[in-house]
Amino acid sequence: MTITELPNPSGAAVLSRLHRLVGNAGWVDDPASMAPYLNEERGNHVGMASAVVKPGSARELADVLALCNEAQLPIVPQGGNTSLVGASIPYEEFAGIVLSTSRLNRIRTIDPVNNTITVDAGVILQTVQQAASDADRLFPLSLGAQGTCQIGGNISTNAGGVGVLRYGNMRELVLGLEVVLADGRIWDGLRGLRKDNTGYDLKQWFIGAEGTLGIITGAVLKLFPKPRETVTALAAIPDPYASVRLLSRLQDETGGGVSGYEIMTRPAIQMAYEHIDGIRDPFDTVYPCYQLVELTGQRADGSLRVSLEDVLGAAMAEGDVLNAVIAESETQGRSLWQIRESISEAQKFEGGSIKHDVAVPISKVAEFMEVATRICEQELKGLQVTAFGHVGDGNIHFNMNQPTTGWTKPAFMKQGPRFNRIVHDIVTDMGGSISAEHGIGRIKKTELAYYHDPLEIEMMRALKAQLDPNGIMNPGKIF
Amino acid sequence: MTITELPNPSGAAVLSRLHRLVGNAGWVDDPASMAPYLNEERGNHVGMASAVVKPGSARELADVLALCNEAQLPIVPQGGNTSLVGASIPYEEFAGIVLSTSRLNRIRTIDPVNNTITVDAGVILQTVQQAASDADRLFPLSLGAQGTCQIGGNISTNAGGVGVLRYGNMRELVLGLEVVLADGRIWDGLRGLRKDNTGYDLKQWFIGAEGTLGIITGAVLKLFPKPRETVTALAAIPDPYASVRLLSRLQDETGGGVSGYEIMTRPAIQMAYEHIDGIRDPFDTVYPCYQLVELTGQRADGSLRVSLEDVLGAAMAEGDVLNAVIAESETQGRSLWQIRESISEAQKFEGGSIKHDVAVPISKVAEFMEVATRICEQELKGLQVTAFGHVGDGNIHFNMNQPTTGWTKPAFMKQGPRFNRIVHDIVTDMGGSISAEHGIGRIKKTELAYYHDPLEIEMMRALKAQLDPNGIMNPGKIF
Repeated sequence: MTITELPNPSGAAVLSRLHRLVGNAGWVDDPASMAPYLNEERGNHVGMASAVVKPGSARELADVLALCNEAQLPIVPQGGNTSLVGASIPYEEFAGIVLSTSRLNRIRTIDPVNNTITVDAGVILQTVQQAASDADRLFPLSLGAQGTCQIGGNISTNAGGVGVLRYGNMRELVLGLEVVLADGRIWDGLRGLRKDNTGYDLKQWFIGAEGTLGIITGAVLKLFPKPRETVTALAAIPDPYASVRLLSRLQDETGGGVSGYEIMTRPAIQMAYEHIDGIRDPFDTVYPCYQLVELTGQRADGSLRVSLEDVLGAAMAEGDVLNAVIAESETQGRSLWQIRESISEAQKFEGGSIKHDVAVPISKVAEFMEVATRICEQELKGLQVTAFGHVGDGNIHFNMNQPTTGWTKPAFMKQGPRFNRIVHDIVTDMGGSISAEHGIGRIKKTELAYYHDPLEIEMMRALKAQLDPNGIMNPGKIF
Repeated sequence: MTITELPNPSGAAVLSRLHRLVGNAGWVDDPASMAPYLNEERGNHVGMASAVVKPGSARELADVLALCNEAQLPIVPQGGNTSLVGASIPYEEFAGIVLSTSRLNRIRTIDPVNNTITVDAGVILQTVQQAASDADRLFPLSLGAQGTCQIGGNISTNAGGVGVLRYGNMRELVLGLEVVLADGRIWDGLRGLRKDNTGYDLKQWFIGAEGTLGIITGAVLKLFPKPRETVTALAAIPDPYASVRLLSRLQDETGGGVSGYEIMTRPAIQMAYEHIDGIRDPFDTVYPCYQLVELTGQRADGSLRVSLEDVLGAAMAEGDVLNAVIAESETQGRSLWQIRESISEAQKFEGGSIKHDVAVPISKVAEFMEVATRICEQELKGLQVTAFGHVGDGNIHFNMNQPTTGWTKPAFMKQGPRFNRIVHDIVTDMGGSISAEHGIGRIKKTELAYYHDPLEIEMMRALKAQLDPNGIMNPGKIF
């Protein structure tokens, strides 16, 4: 069976059985209504599907899967469809279904004493954050797509974002899962426990598996005390080496208090200043690099600000900080964050952009930025590297804009594979990752196969073969 | 093949090939020298083996496994042999080998900037703690057996201990693994990255798998800033409900600052006072329950102590704390910890003890302690429950001592299964775990099969079948 043909002659009959199963409320098959489920937001991929199926409950979803498995009808599971690697989009001539979790959108329970929230997979990330906040708790996962992406997708991709340094990746925030297996059986692993060593930790299999092993329908997530004090600063720094040293100082001063730590090179921040309304440079001078720092704590007595001032002062004395502004209010703090958050949007105004989401050990991150920038800019005259990201996780969004003259966007974008190889070679030499937080999906499959030990792919395939013997779950993704 | 017979007629030939492979330095087969590898420390199990094999490198260990796999000779992997569930001990008539990692004892590298340490699996936990400390860092895993247990065993059992509330279980402390698979292939997953989403997270499979899927030979572990300030207190409290409320107050005041939070009921602490030299009650009065509290921070300005005094004062005003002592020195702090650490040893003086290592949601932990104590003490006249443990993880060591009259130790211990069932029923009703931090090994296999969904066991067996098709890896453990 290839993924491009209807798997069996009874395909139409299977579809109508699926339609009856979920009813009209769970069925979309006209092209206009299907479009949002088949188009990747950046326009890089447009998929096809026989229908979009939206079950109204985990039980209904399980019945859908059982039927699909029996009929060998392939499935693309989809949450908020915000994948940046094409994981949530079907292939161009896909004859299976998109299985959307969007109607599984209940917050089931919240337990402020256990510091847990139990939610359906289709709940929007921002809704979870809000529910936690309403209970005077923090759900710390935070990323650009949070108004659209769903928790099930966050778990299936082991989402990262800006809070990882302090609170961990999505994997560290999941205590329990409910998963529908490919054959339609429901595994109820919805435990809200901090310690549980009763055999293999099955939930780990599904976290980050990009919907290739089963469909997550519910989750128990960790909550944290809501911070009482937040201090945000933007520091001008000479280079990424200073960023790493400043982080070390901050961690030593505050322990786990650094909740945000985002580097932006001048070319990256420059795009935000130029293209995004309401974003302004707080400094009069142009600096080579910038560090956004956020500290949070519980005291609300101003001591956190004192710590930050102390550290910035000491770093300034040694030349690691050239200038700095500390937000005087929550609004000012938000506006510093907006600079960082505008970069991806700003990049769209610069023509073609070849992007990399990579990680290296923190001790290598500055060297990586320096070396990779130099090599890439030498490789193609006029190309400009715009690098930014999560220094505290070693995770840099290492992007490059097309030269301002001499290149069309399509011609430049065709250079992608060449620069992928250059950047990923450097990353790999440094013991790094070619996909830090975006996953593999379809667009990094060949890179995964190229850089990883075939034994790893073999091990992954071995589990896949056990859990999805008919290969119906998100076929053609990861491997 | 059963695990009690030499798997094939050429067994002796295989053994001599193994002997040649590792040399005399890696070979133990006389009964006296094998004894420490075959006896469980509490004397509950005495196993048998054809030899104890101690490879001198991961490469050598891989060759041993390849040979054993080919010959279908079963293996019991062993670290420090401190398992409390018989996971590291062969069965009574086992004809395979014990494979000890004790000669894999190098600290490979330490990277203070990346906050990672890379070690062989056979390095003693305390040695890792010391190496981290020497580099001005903290490796936070801390448990009773730390002077003996090995990192590979800690990872294979997803060890817990007293630092989990703040730093997580061993699973959260592992960034990368090197694993020898059953067929002798080495999987090199020694990455030291905070973010890496390149397909399934293979290391998760081996963490907590109790040596049934492969043998861990190396690991990259997370380090943390070394705390600059520690405050320790012992609070007398009315009951476990007060403990949970006090934790909530402390977390709200300090964020992640609570690094130790151990409850001890009076009968538990009483044993330490009675049986262990140098342990004394800091209070003049007897209280029903006690809470050990440790806060750590980075400031070293005394502010942590102020926070603790504030919280204890507020809790006292509401009756949640009846009395409290705060350590005035590191030595005093150590002596408060020694009370807690003496309980397991003290229990040995009380005759038979039926033990449970359970977890429930933190919101249920007080109710669990109350209900389970009442039911068990009603069930057998004179039985005394001694409960203690990690309230912040919902993990209670719920033990019961034999009545002071009318019972022999063997007769009392025969009541074990009956009380296991009572306690585990209560735990299961509360959504809890029948093995919070000790694992399954051999002694909880039947309980796992009884309480868990058969689907879970089926999923575990599916992975096992793929990674260890000949069933040579720690046979008869977990399932």
